[in-house]
Amino acid sequence: MHINSESIHAQTKDSEKLNDHKNKIINSVGAVYPFEIKFNSSLKLQSGQSINNYNLMVETYGTLNSNKNNAVLICHALNASHHIAGYYENEPNNIGWWDNMVGPNKPIDTNKFFVIGINNLGSCFGSTGPKSINFNTEKKYGADFPLLTVEDWVNAQVKVIDYLGIDKLCAVMGGSLGGMQALSWSLQYPEKLEHCIIIASTAKLSAQNIAFNEIARQAILTDPNYYDGDYYHYNTNPAQGLKLARMLGHITYLSTQDMAAKFGRDHKFNDYQYSFDAEFEIESYLRYQAQKFAEYFDANTYLLMTKALDYFDPAKKYGNGSLTKALENVLSKFLLISFTTDWRFDTKCSKEIVKALIDNKKQVSYAEIDAPHGHDEFLLTNNHYHNIIRDYADNMYFNIA
Amino acid sequence: MHINSESIHAQTKDSEKLNDHKNKIINSVGAVYPFEIKFNSSLKLQSGQSINNYNLMVETYGTLNSNKNNAVLICHALNASHHIAGYYENEPNNIGWWDNMVGPNKPIDTNKFFVIGINNLGSCFGSTGPKSINFNTEKKYGADFPLLTVEDWVNAQVKVIDYLGIDKLCAVMGGSLGGMQALSWSLQYPEKLEHCIIIASTAKLSAQNIAFNEIARQAILTDPNYYDGDYYHYNTNPAQGLKLARMLGHITYLSTQDMAAKFGRDHKFNDYQYSFDAEFEIESYLRYQAQKFAEYFDANTYLLMTKALDYFDPAKKYGNGSLTKALENVLSKFLLISFTTDWRFDTKCSKEIVKALIDNKKQVSYAEIDAPHGHDEFLLTNNHYHNIIRDYADNMYFNIA
Repeated sequence: MHINSESIHAQTKDSEKLNDHKNKIINSVGAVYPFEIKFNSSLKLQSGQSINNYNLMVETYGTLNSNKNNAVLICHALNASHHIAGYYENEPNNIGWWDNMVGPNKPIDTNKFFVIGINNLGSCFGSTGPKSINFNTEKKYGADFPLLTVEDWVNAQVKVIDYLGIDKLCAVMGGSLGGMQALSWSLQYPEKLEHCIIIASTAKLSAQNIAFNEIARQAILTDPNYYDGDYYHYNTNPAQGLKLARMLGHITYLSTQDMAAKFGRDHKFNDYQYSFDAEFEIESYLRYQAQKFAEYFDANTYLLMTKALDYFDPAKKYGNGSLTKALENVLSKFLLISFTTDWRFDTKCSKEIVKALIDNKKQVSYAEIDAPHGHDEFLLTNNHYHNIIRDYADNMYFNIA
Repeated sequence: MHINSESIHAQTKDSEKLNDHKNKIINSVGAVYPFEIKFNSSLKLQSGQSINNYNLMVETYGTLNSNKNNAVLICHALNASHHIAGYYENEPNNIGWWDNMVGPNKPIDTNKFFVIGINNLGSCFGSTGPKSINFNTEKKYGADFPLLTVEDWVNAQVKVIDYLGIDKLCAVMGGSLGGMQALSWSLQYPEKLEHCIIIASTAKLSAQNIAFNEIARQAILTDPNYYDGDYYHYNTNPAQGLKLARMLGHITYLSTQDMAAKFGRDHKFNDYQYSFDAEFEIESYLRYQAQKFAEYFDANTYLLMTKALDYFDPAKKYGNGSLTKALENVLSKFLLISFTTDWRFDTKCSKEIVKALIDNKKQVSYAEIDAPHGHDEFLLTNNHYHNIIRDYADNMYFNIA
């Protein structure tokens, strides 16, 4: 199981790293054990297609109380997984992607909450996806794997919640694409969640967001090793395309200021080299990140994740273009958080959701956090941000305890 | 000769188009004739390499006065050329890339000024570049064409000015990469220009700018049709890489707001298609622009242009890291213009140059224009912007007439 946590680590200063490391030892949920849930049913998708006999990889931390009302579902973004917190016994360095958020005495305190992580359908960390064997053809799905939507993921996640015997989640929570899933939960299953926590997210991609995704997809789709999505059969991998996609993604995850502060125009050499080798530090960084990513991530998953992002548009789906109308019937309470230097999903995107909720007189808390690290901030250890989550979560717990 | 003017046209609303068309007929310099200047000498480059026996394509408009002090050199950016204004007799739709700026009674009035356009060394519109025959080997340069810097271009341009018998230019002017050349003129040949007009430019790329360039380069360099730069010999073209590079460039040329206003989330179809075909308008637009670009532009030129952008850093070259120190000895007067929604080279970049000039008590005018079209605004017809250039140019003329 390969899990991405490098975006956290690459951006953490040395002192922060030390603190993080200390925290990991003191407040970790410890060794964790993923498990697979097999569904022998058919899941009807928004596209009209269906997935039969699918598996979902799951991890849970903490204990489900006897009222079964302390469960928090955490939804992951593009390249993460069900491995949110803790480590694996045989892979002690494989730390969950939101380990600074979830654990004993952490903002989402596993002494209080039963936390659930699910690897999304179509992902590449054990849940059924393009590189899985298609039950019908007994070959890897490849190009036959259907495109998915945020709504499809939520419909799959609700099966896991049912399987665990939970009627109503205390909260659904996520950042970025994970926040879209949380928002969609409040629309698809309004009676099934008490709280909805949406961080650094948006109710729809902008034209510029779609443009970035389209370039990433074109990089993969035109890689000669892509073979129309069936590269598994050729024992190849459209790694070049995937690397370009990842480099591009990285630019949008980091704030302009942060990139300037971290890399500026620093060179690897005293003088210009007049070649296409990496000579600026930012070039080396991007190449390194891209290389690592291409070694563990699946290109078909990347493609379908970006399409799900593009398609997400609850105002269109539920409100005839109006987000206010779309959110009329939500029942949960909301917490939204955005970061000032996030230019991927800027604070206006969160404010749009907040406004639509207020228009409907829904209960909503919102914090705009002044923070330097752009979109990636949602993964980082930021006390202001974490304290808000902690206080909100403590309050959630107070009402069920 | 293929000249890029699509970025102007794609962004002009219908009414503006009509006005532009009217202007073209009324105020055009008319049919123009490029000419080639052959230099049988060697040009020493910043890299230590040399170019021997190079040609530069040139166009001029208006008349050089008897004092030879009314010449304005206009430097071009990444994908443009010497064809600044007018049209070709046999290609009436091939309008110069800055035709709205240069012509009779236009901001740079060809009734007053003698305007010079030079296709940069290394470009692909007739001047010696990677697809030219190497005098030494009698084969196309390809990968052997040396990497260039902004300083090298200026050193080549000064040969043209000498050839035309001009001791001192009334002005050097340019937008974006063209503005870098103007700034570099003021440093390399301070006594050879009276005015320096720098629009939507910067004294150095940021880490984010370099990151975008690096991804564009990686797209080309890893295209299997690139053949280490020698694709001419294989009769191929790394068109996929070039298309990705162009799509990426486009995102940075348009403002976020402008992209939202022009494309938003508009679909080509009523329902989602659940395929990788273009379904959002922004996808079609980018694919179309990329396709057109790849048909006329040379990938090796794209590579070297982005490297010249990355390398430009007068503070490092002349000021030990201080732009103020670097600009100590400039002699020209300056006009700088930036646009509020330009996020490629944002207004801070221009202000940094203005501040360094003021620190040195140099004569500098500066306008920050509130305009919606991002970096591309410098190519568009914007009255506020054009009137500032017009007034400044009229004043330049007043002092020489």
